[in-house]
Amino acid sequence: MNPKPDELHLNAWRLFITAHATLIDTIDRELTTADCIPLHWYDVLVELVEAPDHRLRLYELADKVILSRSGLTRLVDKLENAGLLKREPNPEDRRGYYAVLTEAGYAALRKAWPIYAAGIQSHFAVHLSDDEAAIFSRVLRQILKSRQAAE
Amino acid sequence: MNPKPDELHLNAWRLFITAHATLIDTIDRELTTADCIPLHWYDVLVELVEAPDHRLRLYELADKVILSRSGLTRLVDKLENAGLLKREPNPEDRRGYYAVLTEAGYAALRKAWPIYAAGIQSHFAVHLSDDEAAIFSRVLRQILKSRQAAE
Repeated sequence: MNPKPDELHLNAWRLFITAHATLIDTIDRELTTADCIPLHWYDVLVELVEAPDHRLRLYELADKVILSRSGLTRLVDKLENAGLLKREPNPEDRRGYYAVLTEAGYAALRKAWPIYAAGIQSHFAVHLSDDEAAIFSRVLRQILKSRQAAE
Repeated sequence: MNPKPDELHLNAWRLFITAHATLIDTIDRELTTADCIPLHWYDVLVELVEAPDHRLRLYELADKVILSRSGLTRLVDKLENAGLLKREPNPEDRRGYYAVLTEAGYAALRKAWPIYAAGIQSHFAVHLSDDEAAIFSRVLRQILKSRQAAE
């Protein structure tokens, strides 16, 4: 087995990481311009809004966030300082804490979503036909499934 | 015009950012295990190795790196402390500096590439047929082209 990717696939990989960086940059700038929270903050808060009682143990949160897996502790500090979440001690675990979404955090999410959604639509979605979106999703789902199986 | 993505495309977007984070995490762990530099360091050094005389002005480097656009100055400090690049004053611009790849930086790149390439192959490339890789690349190239046209 040859462990090196061929030119076609190496090119696909380079486009994958370059397009990702460019899209995240672009959407982040649009959020900043609209006076909204950056995408890395959004990514954390959205996990809390989707959790039961809008709260997650810190290690559960670390497992779920997508964009900021390294440096999550510092990010949680920043979000707490900005009043968008609070830490609450976990009564069942003396050393453990919950991160809990605040009203201000919920408001920040609601303000940012229309800008974020418009960015996904105009910079990403318009470039994929339904067929292409289905192929794209199938391939990425396969990649994720194979990683989860390996963990 | 509806500025919101439909479910199909929103799902493709979520898979895009999740698969990206998972792949970068996985490859980074494999590099660490093999006692190699992390991917964010690789990403900077590879731009220098491809530049004329293995050197770039710092603002040119900031333009080219993919994974670490924010926080590049600190990353350049780290790479300099690790001896993998050096800063040299630019004789044509008293306030300007070059980042220059060192021998140790070149050796670190050469050591990391086989691990990185094997990761691209086994976690990404094997999941895309040639046809899928071509569609994938075409879509991502279109996304990038449209962003470049907008800048």
